[in-house]
Amino acid sequence: MNIADIKAFLGRYFSSIELVGSGQTEITSPAKIEEAAAGQVSFVANEKYHRHIAQSGASLLIVHPKAPVDEAPEGMSFLMVEDPYTAFVFILRHFAGERRIVESGVAASASVASSARLGHNVTVGENAVIGERCVIGDDTVIGPNVVLLDEVMIGSECTLFPQVTIYDGAVIGDRVTVHSGTVIGADGFGFAPQKDGSYVKIPQMGTVCIEDDVEIGANTTIDRATMGETVIEKGAKIDNLVQIAHNCRIGGDTVIASQAGISGSVKIGRNCLIGGQAGFAGHLELADKISVAAKAGISKSFKQSGQAIRGVPAQPMRDQLRQEAQIRSLGEMKSKIDELEAQLRELKTRLNG
Amino acid sequence: MNIADIKAFLGRYFSSIELVGSGQTEITSPAKIEEAAAGQVSFVANEKYHRHIAQSGASLLIVHPKAPVDEAPEGMSFLMVEDPYTAFVFILRHFAGERRIVESGVAASASVASSARLGHNVTVGENAVIGERCVIGDDTVIGPNVVLLDEVMIGSECTLFPQVTIYDGAVIGDRVTVHSGTVIGADGFGFAPQKDGSYVKIPQMGTVCIEDDVEIGANTTIDRATMGETVIEKGAKIDNLVQIAHNCRIGGDTVIASQAGISGSVKIGRNCLIGGQAGFAGHLELADKISVAAKAGISKSFKQSGQAIRGVPAQPMRDQLRQEAQIRSLGEMKSKIDELEAQLRELKTRLNG
Amino acid sequence: MNIADIKAFLGRYFSSIELVGSGQTEITSPAKIEEAAAGQVSFVANEKYHRHIAQSGASLLIVHPKAPVDEAPEGMSFLMVEDPYTAFVFILRHFAGERRIVESGVAASASVASSARLGHNVTVGENAVIGERCVIGDDTVIGPNVVLLDEVMIGSECTLFPQVTIYDGAVIGDRVTVHSGTVIGADGFGFAPQKDGSYVKIPQMGTVCIEDDVEIGANTTIDRATMGETVIEKGAKIDNLVQIAHNCRIGGDTVIASQAGISGSVKIGRNCLIGGQAGFAGHLELADKISVAAKAGISKSFKQSGQAIRGVPAQPMRDQLRQEAQIRSLGEMKSKIDELEAQLRELKTRLNG
Repeated sequence: MNIADIKAFLGRYFSSIELVGSGQTEITSPAKIEEAAAGQVSFVANEKYHRHIAQSGASLLIVHPKAPVDEAPEGMSFLMVEDPYTAFVFILRHFAGERRIVESGVAASASVASSARLGHNVTVGENAVIGERCVIGDDTVIGPNVVLLDEVMIGSECTLFPQVTIYDGAVIGDRVTVHSGTVIGADGFGFAPQKDGSYVKIPQMGTVCIEDDVEIGANTTIDRATMGETVIEKGAKIDNLVQIAHNCRIGGDTVIASQAGISGSVKIGRNCLIGGQAGFAGHLELADKISVAAKAGISKSFKQSGQAIRGVPAQPMRDQLRQEAQIRSLGEMKSKIDELEAQLRELKTRLNG
Repeated sequence: MNIADIKAFLGRYFSSIELVGSGQTEITSPAKIEEAAAGQVSFVANEKYHRHIAQSGASLLIVHPKAPVDEAPEGMSFLMVEDPYTAFVFILRHFAGERRIVESGVAASASVASSARLGHNVTVGENAVIGERCVIGDDTVIGPNVVLLDEVMIGSECTLFPQVTIYDGAVIGDRVTVHSGTVIGADGFGFAPQKDGSYVKIPQMGTVCIEDDVEIGANTTIDRATMGETVIEKGAKIDNLVQIAHNCRIGGDTVIASQAGISGSVKIGRNCLIGGQAGFAGHLELADKISVAAKAGISKSFKQSGQAIRGVPAQPMRDQLRQEAQIRSLGEMKSKIDELEAQLRELKTRLNG
Repeated sequence: MNIADIKAFLGRYFSSIELVGSGQTEITSPAKIEEAAAGQVSFVANEKYHRHIAQSGASLLIVHPKAPVDEAPEGMSFLMVEDPYTAFVFILRHFAGERRIVESGVAASASVASSARLGHNVTVGENAVIGERCVIGDDTVIGPNVVLLDEVMIGSECTLFPQVTIYDGAVIGDRVTVHSGTVIGADGFGFAPQKDGSYVKIPQMGTVCIEDDVEIGANTTIDRATMGETVIEKGAKIDNLVQIAHNCRIGGDTVIASQAGISGSVKIGRNCLIGGQAGFAGHLELADKISVAAKAGISKSFKQSGQAIRGVPAQPMRDQLRQEAQIRSLGEMKSKIDELEAQLRELKTRLNG
């Protein structure tokens, strides 16, 4: 694929692309800008990395139209687009090709219930188990050793990596990716306390709905609802080892980083960013576009959209940063008090003297 | 099942139940009070939700004898019991029925060692692997793709959901439920440091004992003891993604929320409540009935039963809340110091003037 | 095995061992010092446990040459070595023997791609799936229900416990142990934000390299790199439920406790100790031999080797402990301010009076 081909390929996604330099050089792979060599393509999206341009060995750089290309090494070409990062992502996707998870078709060792219905071109890996009345959409790939209990519905073009478990009744949309070890639809954690200190299990009769274009990392757990549904809305992205408890609703295009924990019945808005190891108390609401710092402990609702919150307990970013600064200056504060005390003592001595 | 039938059914669990209204209405399913419609049953356990009674469309509500039923819509019936919440849980269990995890019997694709002994009516799912000399009690269900290494003993009426792994020698009681992806009995994390900075692995020769009526969530890890046993006592409930290290003892009817981490050799008493993402340093002891707030970091033992603790490092709730309030008022404190300083300066000026 | 045999066995690892007492007593098992009985061996490594010697029922104790053996019960023998702890670990390893995970050979129910190459004496458990062009070294044990996607390379003498998943292209060294449920090589968590609030997935084209002598606990996740490699260097030990994101490099002989989370592109030095539930922001560097306290939140690089850090955000141990002490004395500080205020008021009254 030469540079002109890449320009044509990016033309599918971007209306305006300008080529600076030769279009003839053959490009064989993508690379990081510091490591790129002849025949490779890289990118600069952030102004502060423009200084890398002069040192790079790449044959092609994807840059913003305002990038300073004058200082580029001889022979380097540029494709200029408004969003060089996303353009490079599309180039990565082109070079990545399709990852083979398992051979096409239904493996002989898979157990598919006779009442299950599989769409066109469904792949089912070795030892996968598909329960009664499951429905699987076209072009979906079920990896080896995946288990679907009864009546799971999965849309089209989904990928379930090996060892995923989906409990009975869960509904998964189209183009959903679930990484290995993730468990969807296990029982919510609900027990009714009894007078003798023991607990009676509350049946978890609800289900889970994962909407289209969601990606879920490895070893994450998303519990079914007690009654009703736990919902992950369209386009949400969830990292590894995340806990999403019963009856949560995670808004569309919200991103949740690794090891965050969302307690029962929490509603998170759209386009939020939830940092790693953040934790939510139950029954809270977050508005849209809220950014939650890593390790935050959210103990109340935040209903104003677009704000950033941080700390344990979480508060608006500015308040929390001010508080952290005050804590850092405690030593200074203490010195000042000691000094005031000394001055006051001296003053009294003078007055009494 | 009509309302009179439900009254009779609850009579198995409660000595005193009063019916207000007709017993003839047919009830087909349970629902949340805000969503319940004709033919459905719901409940109110907490006084502050009594206001929902007048708006509910439910045909039957389970309430406390003191609930204000006068304002109820026409045609609504009530069953009055001391503990409406638990009564509703039993109704949920009735309507939930038995969840089918897998077909009864031993799947043809399961690998059961010839030296393993299975009780009556044991179910073993597809691709499950049962090691040498395992013993499995009556009516226990082993889900698909579960692996039991050698000499695992499991009691009666247990449910192991798909993809559970239990290492060699672990002992599981009766009526234990383990959700998917959970690993019981992996090696404790123990390595002896050597002079050159490397580590020699300490063999983990102990085992794990899970007593009766324990429920364990998904993707949780409970390590075997170095020597002796890691013990989860009768009736404890453990959520998803919890870490319980080697040689821990978790007391009976203690509840541990998601993503909590219990380091090696910690002893937690009975009837404790451990909040999500709480973490324990090693070799600590907690007395009975201690409540640990979410995200707490427990760095010493708490030997007085019944207390609530919170914070990092954790301290008694009242001390921690006072400290949090002091931190919130640091700005005020700073202003006061500045004012004292100004006043003192003024005073000095006057005296010197 | 009598005591003289144990002395000879330890002679393989230690140049200097002294026997005090009889070498003839038969030793059948190891035990904790408080629990050891006749026929058992235990150890004392730490001076503060020397008081246990007089009470122990063990027939043999492994101790330091300076241990006070005069007060020992009659008939107790001693082996004296410089590092009694490690000596005892070797004795534990001897008595532990080899844990059988699965029968030798390749199970009939395993699916091994015809293009995969297996070394001598490789064991492959039931329902394990080994993808195209995988290479597995001599004496390696692949547990039941393990899945290796295509082109995974595994060295010699490795142990993969049941239900491990390794994605395509990962490279694992010699003598590596991976516990159940762990996922190596899943996609890094990378998505390019679009103007409409949605995300485009960034292909994760890199891989994972786990060097020799690494041990990884259960249900841990180690993501593949976006480009390049995620690397776990030789001898590192990683506990359960740990998250290691794309493009991280974990230094040799570094130990990471349970539920720690390492964000993308973090470089951790050699011989570090990372406490449980610690969390790292992305793109940071830690020098060698740094000790990170449990629950710390590391938000910047620490480039001076050998230091201890703690807190959220993490700072050098001494600064953090001072700060924690200052916070604990806030009540006192407030009292002092109130007192200064009262004194000042009194002083003013006097001056005005």
